[in-house]
Amino acid sequence: MQKPSNPQGTRDFSPRVMRRRNYILSTIQTIFEKYGFEPLETPALENLSLLTGKYGDEGDKLLYKIRSNKEIVNEIGQTEANTIKELLPNRWIPGKSKLGLRYDLTVPFARFVVQHRNDIVFPFRRFQIQPVWRADRPQKGRFREFTQCDADCIGSNSLLHEADLIQIYDEALCNLGLQRAILRINHRKFLEAIVDELKLDFPVARFTTTLDKLDKIGEEGVTKELKALGLDDNTCLSLFRMIESVSLTKEGLSELEARFNQNELAKMAIADLGEIVAYLDGHDAGINLVLDLSLARGLDYYTGSIFEAVVPDSGIGSISGGGRYDDLTGVFGLKDVSGVGISFGVDRIYEILDAEELWPNDLSGNQSVVICHFDDKSRIHANKVARKLRANNISVIVYPDQKRINKQFDFANKTGAKYAVVIGDDEIESGDLSVKDLKSGSQDTLSLDKAVALFQS
Amino acid sequence: MQKPSNPQGTRDFSPRVMRRRNYILSTIQTIFEKYGFEPLETPALENLSLLTGKYGDEGDKLLYKIRSNKEIVNEIGQTEANTIKELLPNRWIPGKSKLGLRYDLTVPFARFVVQHRNDIVFPFRRFQIQPVWRADRPQKGRFREFTQCDADCIGSNSLLHEADLIQIYDEALCNLGLQRAILRINHRKFLEAIVDELKLDFPVARFTTTLDKLDKIGEEGVTKELKALGLDDNTCLSLFRMIESVSLTKEGLSELEARFNQNELAKMAIADLGEIVAYLDGHDAGINLVLDLSLARGLDYYTGSIFEAVVPDSGIGSISGGGRYDDLTGVFGLKDVSGVGISFGVDRIYEILDAEELWPNDLSGNQSVVICHFDDKSRIHANKVARKLRANNISVIVYPDQKRINKQFDFANKTGAKYAVVIGDDEIESGDLSVKDLKSGSQDTLSLDKAVALFQS
Repeated sequence: MQKPSNPQGTRDFSPRVMRRRNYILSTIQTIFEKYGFEPLETPALENLSLLTGKYGDEGDKLLYKIRSNKEIVNEIGQTEANTIKELLPNRWIPGKSKLGLRYDLTVPFARFVVQHRNDIVFPFRRFQIQPVWRADRPQKGRFREFTQCDADCIGSNSLLHEADLIQIYDEALCNLGLQRAILRINHRKFLEAIVDELKLDFPVARFTTTLDKLDKIGEEGVTKELKALGLDDNTCLSLFRMIESVSLTKEGLSELEARFNQNELAKMAIADLGEIVAYLDGHDAGINLVLDLSLARGLDYYTGSIFEAVVPDSGIGSISGGGRYDDLTGVFGLKDVSGVGISFGVDRIYEILDAEELWPNDLSGNQSVVICHFDDKSRIHANKVARKLRANNISVIVYPDQKRINKQFDFANKTGAKYAVVIGDDEIESGDLSVKDLKSGSQDTLSLDKAVALFQS
Repeated sequence: MQKPSNPQGTRDFSPRVMRRRNYILSTIQTIFEKYGFEPLETPALENLSLLTGKYGDEGDKLLYKIRSNKEIVNEIGQTEANTIKELLPNRWIPGKSKLGLRYDLTVPFARFVVQHRNDIVFPFRRFQIQPVWRADRPQKGRFREFTQCDADCIGSNSLLHEADLIQIYDEALCNLGLQRAILRINHRKFLEAIVDELKLDFPVARFTTTLDKLDKIGEEGVTKELKALGLDDNTCLSLFRMIESVSLTKEGLSELEARFNQNELAKMAIADLGEIVAYLDGHDAGINLVLDLSLARGLDYYTGSIFEAVVPDSGIGSISGGGRYDDLTGVFGLKDVSGVGISFGVDRIYEILDAEELWPNDLSGNQSVVICHFDDKSRIHANKVARKLRANNISVIVYPDQKRINKQFDFANKTGAKYAVVIGDDEIESGDLSVKDLKSGSQDTLSLDKAVALFQS
């Protein structure tokens, strides 16, 4: 007998976990919707040709490819096929695979935009919450099947989108109880300005890879790497002074203005961020909004603003990233489509909420009222009571089997029910309900209306 | 330049389609929850060994298998690998694939139950709404990636579950506007009773395959097939009299009792259905509940009640099926776990609602209020207004770009907005909102509170 198990790097989401995941996802989705983002879903299966080459060499290796069902025999002839079958006994030889599994939500979204560009009203705001698959080595917090939760604004280069996304970050993280989260914000032009100001003679991308590690390896580590790139001690010191964090406020921007003097690249970044600050005027942020000039995050991709959300002291890296990209759809032949988007790491947020027990109380169990009974007659009557409660949108389970009443209470307790209703001859006659509070153990006889009010409270 | 497209047999769900699909799914899910069903999700990836052999030969062919990333070279040696590479140029030779894509929700659920049997409180009610994949030939209404929507009660043989599922059918189909739907109900024991009464000398399964076609090929066609099985004309006539539909009521059951005389198998079916009718006492069904003794649906699987929901004259076959199975988990070594479940065909329900325009009105477009403006100053102020509206849970888009007001109204109209708010110098000064009803074209100046009330109505 085979002992069944789920594949390595995948998970079953039990009802308990589902309720918690749904809490995170619906919290975020509700906010996306308040900002006018619309739902989109794309298939798990994509043409392999569409995926290949989009995620770098490393990504190509991690793509899940689907076997074609076509026998190779048709293509190479029987003799050769026989040779192969001898060399590979008991092995199914596939035709060329033409399908792969979705690796992220961005490339499928770009495909969707290009494919449906004539039907889409731009600027277009969409959110997409779906699983993606990566044939990665599974380890703590890294799965082969995991959920991405993206929101993008596309077809407009207005910085109002950036302001909206910052407010979404703020509202989502506060609503999830993560008020101490920090949203790190940067602008690509600042990174270019640093290279320019320090008169470095290598491309900005090389420099930022090093800078991005500041969090992990500290100033000392970064200095060491920069020196290997040819920087002297003084330049490193200037650099660290230059990238010191400031708040995303008018004052913070003035400070940066002074720091970068008349650097033209920095001026462009400051102008953009100034516009964002103007849009945020009157917004009372619950989380910390910080301009962090060391933030780079896949710089080859982002062309303007860059975002990263972190929860200090959680032991978990970033829980969300994003930024502006000026050419999402270029690879599919649609040029000059600017967009800005963010992506929440649902699994990482889950881990933090779980470790810090930040879940709302009512997610712990099945909240149904359980109706208990003594015999066939009361079980039949229980269904009438259930019908009346359900008509008031109360979730109800009539205990289905003929068991002793204590067994039925056991079931109610174990499933997480708050209340049990007991139906006996008295209740059938009077129409009242005998309601047991499973936490306190107290029992009360209530009219149907009063019981409904109690269960709804 | 590659022209991007989604793979054959898969679909993108645009916001318009998503809203409609979500309407169907949330209507059904809300009812599942009212009957105490709990959410469950299993991974898309399953071990191939778990899937193989569970769906018959035909099913095995339709399984999507995942390529392993391991090179075969390690297993067979370089010389042989070179030979294969010569025979299969430019072809990636996979190791033995160990993963496949979920083919239905039942086998993964059975695996979950066996794997987590010590943590599950039985009887266990779960619903599961997830995509499944089948490498089928795509055609109208048949997709390679489609959504299943299942609810099962497991670990109890009480017929109260059947009664609950019938009420769920009724409530779900009525809430979706499909009051004319028919729920066909049968019991395996009736099919056995027919074979018994007619003294047929072949197994019940062979007989029911023919009977199941009654809908499609009519009495004449079924008669022809039955004759080929050795039945004479009189027996066929007796058969058709025997299986004539009755309603699921005490009266209907009395009629069947008379028809089947003292047949012991029929008595067992009638006793079961009598218990279900007792649980349904007081339930006022909106759809038709019909005992249809020709219904078989994969008889090898169902051991008690059998369900099938159809919408007459829709041109679409069944929109849901289900029944009782006495051995869901036996194949995984857990014996004697009885369950009963149903599965809604979301895509088919979608097609019927779409063809008959049964969608609620408010699913047509993005319902966000669009705020329009004239210049930088009013656009910045628009964000303050947006913030106040969103604080009242109103979905708002501030038009992001500097465009002429008519362009902004165009955008609002095209996205499906009902209202646009126009912010100019007057509104900045007064704090009132100029609200345009985009359907009637009328424009009004309202206080913030009045505007909030209007948008929430």
